[in-house]
Amino acid sequence: MHFQLLPLANSIADVDGFFCDGVHAGLKKDGPDIGFIYSDTLCDISAIFTSNRFQAAPIKHFQKHAITQTNFILTNSKNANAMTGKAGIEDIEEILSSLDFPMQNPLMSSTGVIGVRLTKEKIIDAAKKFHLQAKNADNFAHSIMTTDTFPKSVGFEVHLEDGKSFRIAGVAKGAGMIDPALATMLCFIVTDAAIPKEDMDKLLRKNAETSFNAISVDGDRSTNDSVFLLANGKSEIYEKESFDFALQQIMHRLALLIVKDGEGAKKLVAFKITGAKSKEEAKKAAKALTNSLLVKTALFGEDPNWGRIASTIGASGVTCDEEKLRIAFEDVLVYDRGEILFNKEQEEKAHKVMQKEEFAITCDLGVGEENFTAYGCDLGYEYVKINAEYRT
Amino acid sequence: MHFQLLPLANSIADVDGFFCDGVHAGLKKDGPDIGFIYSDTLCDISAIFTSNRFQAAPIKHFQKHAITQTNFILTNSKNANAMTGKAGIEDIEEILSSLDFPMQNPLMSSTGVIGVRLTKEKIIDAAKKFHLQAKNADNFAHSIMTTDTFPKSVGFEVHLEDGKSFRIAGVAKGAGMIDPALATMLCFIVTDAAIPKEDMDKLLRKNAETSFNAISVDGDRSTNDSVFLLANGKSEIYEKESFDFALQQIMHRLALLIVKDGEGAKKLVAFKITGAKSKEEAKKAAKALTNSLLVKTALFGEDPNWGRIASTIGASGVTCDEEKLRIAFEDVLVYDRGEILFNKEQEEKAHKVMQKEEFAITCDLGVGEENFTAYGCDLGYEYVKINAEYRT
Repeated sequence: MHFQLLPLANSIADVDGFFCDGVHAGLKKDGPDIGFIYSDTLCDISAIFTSNRFQAAPIKHFQKHAITQTNFILTNSKNANAMTGKAGIEDIEEILSSLDFPMQNPLMSSTGVIGVRLTKEKIIDAAKKFHLQAKNADNFAHSIMTTDTFPKSVGFEVHLEDGKSFRIAGVAKGAGMIDPALATMLCFIVTDAAIPKEDMDKLLRKNAETSFNAISVDGDRSTNDSVFLLANGKSEIYEKESFDFALQQIMHRLALLIVKDGEGAKKLVAFKITGAKSKEEAKKAAKALTNSLLVKTALFGEDPNWGRIASTIGASGVTCDEEKLRIAFEDVLVYDRGEILFNKEQEEKAHKVMQKEEFAITCDLGVGEENFTAYGCDLGYEYVKINAEYRT
Repeated sequence: MHFQLLPLANSIADVDGFFCDGVHAGLKKDGPDIGFIYSDTLCDISAIFTSNRFQAAPIKHFQKHAITQTNFILTNSKNANAMTGKAGIEDIEEILSSLDFPMQNPLMSSTGVIGVRLTKEKIIDAAKKFHLQAKNADNFAHSIMTTDTFPKSVGFEVHLEDGKSFRIAGVAKGAGMIDPALATMLCFIVTDAAIPKEDMDKLLRKNAETSFNAISVDGDRSTNDSVFLLANGKSEIYEKESFDFALQQIMHRLALLIVKDGEGAKKLVAFKITGAKSKEEAKKAAKALTNSLLVKTALFGEDPNWGRIASTIGASGVTCDEEKLRIAFEDVLVYDRGEILFNKEQEEKAHKVMQKEEFAITCDLGVGEENFTAYGCDLGYEYVKINAEYRT
């Protein structure tokens, strides 16, 4: 099957039958802080949630009502509605039942501070003024941002070789607490493809492994992480291969945007593990590198300190051998199976690689055939500043 | 058995039969950078080493020669002699065989940058000038320091109720890369107790669990972490209970000094997990808290952000329940089994607790009977500064 991906200008707003907007409810000082996605027909919905044992109230609410179809998602930033117990779920029910929209199985999705009850009145008052026919993806993308510095959207019109087409688009928020196992991130993907529910679940899960589950900002994972896929079937088109590819592109690009916008981060680094004994070990080593403070601060300092990389791999518990390991900054090999190639010249070359905003560090373990790439960022003063002062 | 611990003024230098010093070999800009511990009789030696798969050359050398008795340890800072392969081990053998001292099974112990060969000549030239009869514990303690800001020593004369006594003392270095599973730390403990080798191994391992294995500065663990216990038997005294207690005190105090001197750290925080389902889970949750970047930056900001603490416990994978968890900053309870007690007054009280240099955060999981306390520190700008600029 041949197909072509053409970018959409307005992300989820460009997908037939979906509407969205973000407005100011007074949770943030200014700018949109609550938002919605509305579909004029009932959609199938698939979701992946955080592995944190203390799942936030919106996730519990979703599970309590066993939602598989919906036409309305209400979002808010600034307050995670987490660790709020039964009251947190009741708050959601009260908010949603106060809204006089043609909603079927509506749900909420929240991000922000943990352990504080929602200010229901503010949210209800502002939500009542939603224009359900709005198509303002940018406002929506802004409404879910917390410490994010830019909105994150991507969408495609997918052209099949028979001249037919469907659309798929996603919006995400990320920034801090982004961990390999899903993290403080919300992602909403909508499509007019006529995808069967079973494939929605399967493809969402599959593509999360190499996208949102392969990134890390600080190794923490939140109570609220959620990825949603909504399909209204309006295009009456479903071609699995092209849908899978487009979904993967969207999730991968949003994941990289999240890392790139990691709190205070200036660099997006791909840690490629090759030659691992198993997929699990490849992933374990790659994630260990994205989470190592010593590696992250070396990235910030643009210091090609390959010893820290080696040490982190050694500490990760994967099968490895000093005499088989190779480490390279892009194409600059600095350690080759027992031989240290790190002279002044190589150091300067590796340092040059690290001055770039995006680059790859490859570690070939040389003990097997499996690979995994995880994406991480540097950790600098800004990260400390943002997180030490978060609540004040 | 009753016994009394009296502090020693000069740490390991005060233990009968042991000698030590540190001198400048030119590895650091100034100050002692190589050192030795010498015993005038052959000692039994027990050791615990890093779990990092890439163990440094000194550790491999120790294992290669299956050392169980020795009278001489040569140390150096600034260079870890790690990832240096067989050449690294040969460097040690060459250095040690160049020294014309009455050594039996001598060993080396190194700390510093990974992936650089030792400058043998500098070390040999300076080591040749060692005065083996020196008793300069302070110089020795300084000689093993890297980013440490103060030397770490502690020692006791242990008085038994029958009037007899023995001595035990330890010196350690720590600072960065300190992880729950041993970290860039070296520790040398010497005693004149007549302890059987079997008990040395057993007690060293046992007490490491609640000391060096219960601390974290940044969650990384090095290629070089080593804890040594040397016993010359000169006192002809061995009483297990008091020895165990004194050893535990020494290891515990040195461990806390290491956390307290964590790179850029201003706070020493005890994370007490109680009511866990198993010892392993208690330890897992406690360590997760010491390693969470969001918790560490909140400590730095003196922000009683208990939501991050809850979230970290939830993410750690241990058995827990929102309706059973309790979280307190010292005696200030902020979350009690589903109830958020975090009003302005409690927040102010918790903030006051966090302004102290040392305090405890207690999390009662309420799902079992097991406890574990791990010790961590805050992460601030200084940590980033030290680690981003380490090699330059």
